[in-house]
Amino acid sequence: MHDLKAPSPEALAQLEKIVGPRGALRAPADAAPYLHERRDLYHGRTPMVLRPSRVEEVSAILKLAHEERIGIVPQGGNTGLVGGQIPSEKGNEIVLSLDRMKAIRHIDAMGNSLIAEAGATLKSVQDAATEAGRLFPLSLGSEGSCQIGGNIATNAGGIHVVRYGAMRELVLGLEAVFPGGHIWHGLKSLRKDNTGYDLKNLLIGSEGTLGIVTAATLRLFPRPAEVATVLAGLPNLRAAADFFSLVSESAGPLLTAFELIPRLLLEFVLAHAPQSRDPLAGVHPWYVLFELSSPLAEGLAERVSVPLLEGAFNRGLIADAAAAASEAQAREFWRMREAMAEVQRYEGGSIKHDVSVPVSAVPSFIEEASAAVTALVPGARPIPFGHFGDGNIHFNVSQPKGMEKAAFLSRWEEVADAVHAIVLRFGGSISAEHGIGRMKTEMLKAAKTQLELGFMLQIKRVFDPRGILNPGKLLSEFVPEN
Amino acid sequence: MHDLKAPSPEALAQLEKIVGPRGALRAPADAAPYLHERRDLYHGRTPMVLRPSRVEEVSAILKLAHEERIGIVPQGGNTGLVGGQIPSEKGNEIVLSLDRMKAIRHIDAMGNSLIAEAGATLKSVQDAATEAGRLFPLSLGSEGSCQIGGNIATNAGGIHVVRYGAMRELVLGLEAVFPGGHIWHGLKSLRKDNTGYDLKNLLIGSEGTLGIVTAATLRLFPRPAEVATVLAGLPNLRAAADFFSLVSESAGPLLTAFELIPRLLLEFVLAHAPQSRDPLAGVHPWYVLFELSSPLAEGLAERVSVPLLEGAFNRGLIADAAAAASEAQAREFWRMREAMAEVQRYEGGSIKHDVSVPVSAVPSFIEEASAAVTALVPGARPIPFGHFGDGNIHFNVSQPKGMEKAAFLSRWEEVADAVHAIVLRFGGSISAEHGIGRMKTEMLKAAKTQLELGFMLQIKRVFDPRGILNPGKLLSEFVPEN
Repeated sequence: MHDLKAPSPEALAQLEKIVGPRGALRAPADAAPYLHERRDLYHGRTPMVLRPSRVEEVSAILKLAHEERIGIVPQGGNTGLVGGQIPSEKGNEIVLSLDRMKAIRHIDAMGNSLIAEAGATLKSVQDAATEAGRLFPLSLGSEGSCQIGGNIATNAGGIHVVRYGAMRELVLGLEAVFPGGHIWHGLKSLRKDNTGYDLKNLLIGSEGTLGIVTAATLRLFPRPAEVATVLAGLPNLRAAADFFSLVSESAGPLLTAFELIPRLLLEFVLAHAPQSRDPLAGVHPWYVLFELSSPLAEGLAERVSVPLLEGAFNRGLIADAAAAASEAQAREFWRMREAMAEVQRYEGGSIKHDVSVPVSAVPSFIEEASAAVTALVPGARPIPFGHFGDGNIHFNVSQPKGMEKAAFLSRWEEVADAVHAIVLRFGGSISAEHGIGRMKTEMLKAAKTQLELGFMLQIKRVFDPRGILNPGKLLSEFVPEN
Repeated sequence: MHDLKAPSPEALAQLEKIVGPRGALRAPADAAPYLHERRDLYHGRTPMVLRPSRVEEVSAILKLAHEERIGIVPQGGNTGLVGGQIPSEKGNEIVLSLDRMKAIRHIDAMGNSLIAEAGATLKSVQDAATEAGRLFPLSLGSEGSCQIGGNIATNAGGIHVVRYGAMRELVLGLEAVFPGGHIWHGLKSLRKDNTGYDLKNLLIGSEGTLGIVTAATLRLFPRPAEVATVLAGLPNLRAAADFFSLVSESAGPLLTAFELIPRLLLEFVLAHAPQSRDPLAGVHPWYVLFELSSPLAEGLAERVSVPLLEGAFNRGLIADAAAAASEAQAREFWRMREAMAEVQRYEGGSIKHDVSVPVSAVPSFIEEASAAVTALVPGARPIPFGHFGDGNIHFNVSQPKGMEKAAFLSRWEEVADAVHAIVLRFGGSISAEHGIGRMKTEMLKAAKTQLELGFMLQIKRVFDPRGILNPGKLLSEFVPEN
């Protein structure tokens, strides 16, 4: 439905001319890193990877691609988890990598903003903010390699959303290029601007299907003077919800992270991550890793957390807790949390779900979904973990011990359908923070109403009538105009 | 260009049948309150005011209006400041008031959300949140009468945006009706949902031109345990920017309001507001009213504010300050701030601008704009005040003493053009929080690029191809399909 022409040799030569020889990769070995993602779920082929260095080059590329009907797949740090950044296997799409556009163009510390190009890594933006005495709060496991453009295209989330919001809430302005080559100079740095329809929020989260973001004005915050990081062991899952209420009420805006961890996932870490050790003396079925950040360096975080933990202990919401005694220990807690995405692979096949439900429904959702998947695949090991404070659970399921990996993974669709049905019954989302990409296009059709899908398809037509941007992703049923 | 048919007697009868006799006002005396706004800048006429009581009635109205090409002007609390809620003088448009749909449908205190119908006043939503032990932070002068639907349609701001964001950041889900009568059941209560284009943010701030919001899921917050309210006198305008930096760095997320007030505006209050008194001993050219909110009832706000004020005093950023000694005194400070919108009328004509610039540019903007307007109208009295922490200044200009009011107001366009030119030079916005409505449609054309206007017009066509929703507002050049 969304097939576009393979680019002609003349078109390829023109594209190469736009970016110069350093900006165009044709040799298979050079292009290879852009053609598969790290979990090896998606592979693509391409006649050429383009690496423009200026917005004007992106404009010239999208002008030609629109005229010639050439599919363009924008790519950031290639860390996406739903295949959105990988071109089709047919080999007729051009990959457009922003990795050479990585400048921090401007920092306004007093105005709490910074302008970064799309190819800047999240880590480099965090570092630039730190150097200016400010905080850029977005924080993800892949922050060393993921790029700001990809963070915007997917409305990235991570561990600090509970306090600072997802990428959507951190973008003040955008520079972007649309099919036909039109450049949007929208790098405003305003907190308030009520002048018509919100094009910025339409682009954020559109997964490169409406336009290509080349730079963004990002919001900065004062740096906290003090951070308390606490790991608590919980007697049961229901306690997590009451514990979250208690912490968020006691700490208000000081609460900057609240992550849920099941014991089994901690055991995966202990088994597979080098130099890891059980962080609490006893064994608890559930853990919460939370963080309080204070503007004052006067022991506030501790003054909040100590009575809070006492109260939780007395109410039976937690059974044990350890506050990080040093920055090094806090980093160790977070390294353990980050390792959790990685260690699951050592336990065989894993069927993954990135879902959200209302925060108050998280325990019920986890109970029902766990029962459903173990009924479908006896012995399957549910590993629900992640951003409890946002209602965003990575409901992953590791294979039964001893089962064939392929046999387990062949049940993916069946398992996912069961989990997503429960998510939707709770008023939840089938993609909380990873997006739709190529993986979830069919699920999207099932989860959205005809009204919503119809509006989306018409909006796609407004921005990209010929369907050249990220063909087949997000809205796989889009039919280009003649 | 956007002229629609006057509704036929048959169509009026059908509309009346949809809402029942109590829901349709035809008598001029009944309709009158819906046909002018409180500043008397806009007057309209209408054959009928519709007051539906259920979303299904709104749906039936928009189905008929779409079929019959009848213009519909949605109206909330009729407190808008740019004429967006007032029908045309031609008398061919129906007013659709949401004021009978005012239920709080649901509160989820643990999940920090509530569902309110569009006609609920902002005050009633604040009160419902308070009763549930939560905070709904949006706060405006007109909160007793403005309605949630209007707050969403205009992306309302107010005094707490510096901490909690504008309405856009407080809406989790929407129920809305589109031309043709399609109902969007989008009342999600999720913090994270990355499933396609963001229809919610497209509707927010669209001023009733894309769809009619009938209910919303709103975000709640824990209530602060303690609030410190401080009024400071400043030696000059430049100090305000450094003082803001100091306060926001010292207080971080505890800073919940930061308002700028010029001496002249305080004098207007002292002259015209009953029982007001000069709040500080001396006279200062500028004042800042700020608020710190803490989750702990243990004197934190004071522990932050005392050294902060000492530091500011020692650096010459402030000359004097008074912290509210009681809740009553804090309320008095805020009453004084709220009176500032009202008292300007007693000083004759006032030319008003609701603009924003990057926070760091506020002093330069105020200096340049003040010089520009006094050069145009010698003796004119600039009164720049408002939400310094958001870069949002209400740059109002009171007439010279003794000048004819009409003569002064006849210079409106000339003065506004001069002010807006400076705003745009600073990368600012010509409408920070009030929207475009009818007042600023021409200014919008000048402030936006052809690319932006083109996308907006095409988006309007997707949602409202016949142009029945709020005709002539926001995008006055929209041409309906045949």
